[in-house]
Amino acid sequence: MEHSAPARLASPQAARTAPPQRRPVAPGQPTPVCVAYGDGIGPEIMDATLRVLKAAGARLALEPIEIGAKVYQRGVSAGIDADAWAALRRTRVLLKAPITTPSGGGYKSLNVTLRKTLGLFANVRPCASYHPFVATRHPGMNLVIVRENEEDLYAGIEHRPTRDIVECLKITSVPGTERIIRYAFEYARAFGRRKVTCMTKDNIMKLTDGLFSSTFRRIGAEYPDLEQQHLIVDAGAAMLADEPERFDVVVTPNLYGDILSDIAAQVAGSIGMAGSANIGLHAAMFEAIHGSAPSIARRNFANPSGLIQAAVMMLVHIGQNDVATTVQNAWLATIEDGLHTPDIWTRHGSGECVGTAEFAQAVINRIGRAPKRLAAVDFGSGASASFALPAWTRASSQKDLVGVDVFLDAPDVAPESLASQLQPFAGQAFRLQMITNRGVKVWPDGFPETFCTDHWRCRFVARSDAAALEHGQVVALLANMAAAGFDFVKTQHLYRYGGAPGFTMGHGQ
Amino acid sequence: MEHSAPARLASPQAARTAPPQRRPVAPGQPTPVCVAYGDGIGPEIMDATLRVLKAAGARLALEPIEIGAKVYQRGVSAGIDADAWAALRRTRVLLKAPITTPSGGGYKSLNVTLRKTLGLFANVRPCASYHPFVATRHPGMNLVIVRENEEDLYAGIEHRPTRDIVECLKITSVPGTERIIRYAFEYARAFGRRKVTCMTKDNIMKLTDGLFSSTFRRIGAEYPDLEQQHLIVDAGAAMLADEPERFDVVVTPNLYGDILSDIAAQVAGSIGMAGSANIGLHAAMFEAIHGSAPSIARRNFANPSGLIQAAVMMLVHIGQNDVATTVQNAWLATIEDGLHTPDIWTRHGSGECVGTAEFAQAVINRIGRAPKRLAAVDFGSGASASFALPAWTRASSQKDLVGVDVFLDAPDVAPESLASQLQPFAGQAFRLQMITNRGVKVWPDGFPETFCTDHWRCRFVARSDAAALEHGQVVALLANMAAAGFDFVKTQHLYRYGGAPGFTMGHGQ
Repeated sequence: MEHSAPARLASPQAARTAPPQRRPVAPGQPTPVCVAYGDGIGPEIMDATLRVLKAAGARLALEPIEIGAKVYQRGVSAGIDADAWAALRRTRVLLKAPITTPSGGGYKSLNVTLRKTLGLFANVRPCASYHPFVATRHPGMNLVIVRENEEDLYAGIEHRPTRDIVECLKITSVPGTERIIRYAFEYARAFGRRKVTCMTKDNIMKLTDGLFSSTFRRIGAEYPDLEQQHLIVDAGAAMLADEPERFDVVVTPNLYGDILSDIAAQVAGSIGMAGSANIGLHAAMFEAIHGSAPSIARRNFANPSGLIQAAVMMLVHIGQNDVATTVQNAWLATIEDGLHTPDIWTRHGSGECVGTAEFAQAVINRIGRAPKRLAAVDFGSGASASFALPAWTRASSQKDLVGVDVFLDAPDVAPESLASQLQPFAGQAFRLQMITNRGVKVWPDGFPETFCTDHWRCRFVARSDAAALEHGQVVALLANMAAAGFDFVKTQHLYRYGGAPGFTMGHGQ
Repeated sequence: MEHSAPARLASPQAARTAPPQRRPVAPGQPTPVCVAYGDGIGPEIMDATLRVLKAAGARLALEPIEIGAKVYQRGVSAGIDADAWAALRRTRVLLKAPITTPSGGGYKSLNVTLRKTLGLFANVRPCASYHPFVATRHPGMNLVIVRENEEDLYAGIEHRPTRDIVECLKITSVPGTERIIRYAFEYARAFGRRKVTCMTKDNIMKLTDGLFSSTFRRIGAEYPDLEQQHLIVDAGAAMLADEPERFDVVVTPNLYGDILSDIAAQVAGSIGMAGSANIGLHAAMFEAIHGSAPSIARRNFANPSGLIQAAVMMLVHIGQNDVATTVQNAWLATIEDGLHTPDIWTRHGSGECVGTAEFAQAVINRIGRAPKRLAAVDFGSGASASFALPAWTRASSQKDLVGVDVFLDAPDVAPESLASQLQPFAGQAFRLQMITNRGVKVWPDGFPETFCTDHWRCRFVARSDAAALEHGQVVALLANMAAAGFDFVKTQHLYRYGGAPGFTMGHGQ
């Protein structure tokens, strides 16, 4: 893999299964990197950041690309044009200042497009406090959230099957889950972290979140040097909000990670101090977590620290760990010396209140220095913080069709009546096993208190346990129902995998 | 409606659409109420709570029911038997101590069963701090979370359609959404709250969470006396964790509410002080938010405050607001006097450290008193905190079938190849519009970087815009695909409602 992949070799074990290596940048040659100056405060914090990188000796060949407001205004609904895509696919690394997505319909989130299209599967967001130099309720906080970035409810698959019901599909894949969890463990090892916490709601979502938590336990067994913990996400979020000091690396599905990373950034004390990385197998993007703040643009007020932190992550990613160490220690020394931008400046905790440009100069002036009270960093030689992810192989298992959930639109019908209308259609192949409404079993043996919408799930299972069903039998069932005027709105096949059911029971079944 | 419904008449407007009234309890007659003593610390905190209620003059006819560990151990997997159901359906009110669900497979969550079966659509959880008497980081915090309790990902509909993919269905209904949002507004009015905040992720889930937020805005227009706000849940959760003082009533879908209510309880300072109500149209259940804590059972350590708070909510629910006021003010006076159980006792902030029974006696001793520094409450005469929810009527709109998403299991195939295999099946009725993998468009014009699983969504839309499709045309498509050996694992019809699409586009479409 080349420099732009998240990962070079770390262990012989990883080497055995690593993807094919790409040609690295020749020693001494600068690394090509795309930079996007963004909107609002973007240009001034990018300018400050690039000045710091240059002064620290970063070996970069910068390729500016234009994305965001100006591109949207040209009528490109994705906010990125063909030239920018071409540059991005050439360099495979993007340092990105915040952009402004115009409000009103038709504009798509550029971040979602970049993540999805480039397969940036891991969102990595460190959150630390800088006590006593920056005010915080949590002096000891220093954690990293590793959020799955492509799946879950964010797949954007939504339907309205009936007048009463809208649905969104939560998708969890085996390869996506293995990849993000292994990434979290490898990250923890590479960066000297001690503990990895997984958060899911697997007590409710036994198949989807159950896959995530069971994969965490299975892969975790390969990392006995790391402490491991699984928390139910409601209790875990509460703990993160109240005692973030107790966490080190946190790995979670997309939606929980979205919520948890905002909580972590907020309770750390300043949203202006954190950067994040979006990592894929083929590309990576680095950015500050804050927005483009147009109201303070071009006033030299903005704190460039978030983008500087993102740039430090980028330097480690491309193997310039020496430069990353230099920048980070100079930045820590600046924070410690009390030179603070207005967002974090306090009368008692800070020294001089400085602007964007002066802050960058203060960091530049401290290049070569390390902080005295905050812990200095050492990202090592370039090999220490890199790792490979093994190629994924699909496990084969016998897959048998054993039934079908047919979802019907049927307003104002009683469950018993619906069941007796449906039973004749089951025929020789099927039997009607249950009907649920919003997941609650209403037939057989329903409760009259259960509120019913017009959306019914009718589970037909194979009458015989002996033989698997065939798709033609499902088609015949649907053909008969269509002829009888049933408005079936959706079907979902029921499969067994190696004999184990690939579906859950109804509530009350 | 009878006493056991959440709601009696509040306004002429509500009266016009209120459900049929049931016979109320005759004046002076005690209200029948089921009580469940639960497991672990349950019996001792229930005992303490009932002593307080009796001393305060609550007019209750108690019907003890057995649920929880003993029932599970008798082999009843739901943890509740027919006798308990019968009592519950007779009284329609349950005061419930915490129970222990045995670990290991096969046991179902009793709370989920009660909520689902009885249609307890609203989970109402007040979280307040009692500064300076109980330690808290948030002295001014006093909010109520109103959580939708039946829908969302908790419907428990999960499938594994392919070897690579597991899915969970998020369900949001129009009637369920209207009900919970109207409940939140009515609650705010009835209890003198000023502001209602709605939290969703409607920027990502435009149909499901979009329904929730748009319903909030639409119904909110009927409550101009209340301040209203919508927040994206990640930013909202961060704000709740850091500045809970800024919230009053918060209304959210099920999953977010689960996470937010744990955060709120945690940052309020003590999980042992909060009660919650589960409210339905036909029944209601009141409980402490903490668990059964078997490790401290029968030691007279446990804080009965959470269950006392639940009992106060129950008294208001059944119209004994006078007794609720008496109990709450005596309890506040006890907290203020520093008589604290060990969970909240501190050397500097508390007075005497007391046990469960002594705490109850201290509350009893203060009956008739009001707190001096904490704000005294007055729940009014019984009419002030009650309200009716209007009956729901389904809006009719023209529904047209305009296409079908066919989901295929097809390992190791390239999108272009899959598209050319599928196109012949589209026939006269359909055209293949797009293929997505994990929600990302991979055909036409996909990106080679996009990682593909074995799970493909193939969108067939009507070739002609003029006429709606018929179910038979979908069946014919599937029949041809089945004959050709395609493993279609799921179908989802695409409908338009009054011309507007009831489905979302693919990412990148």
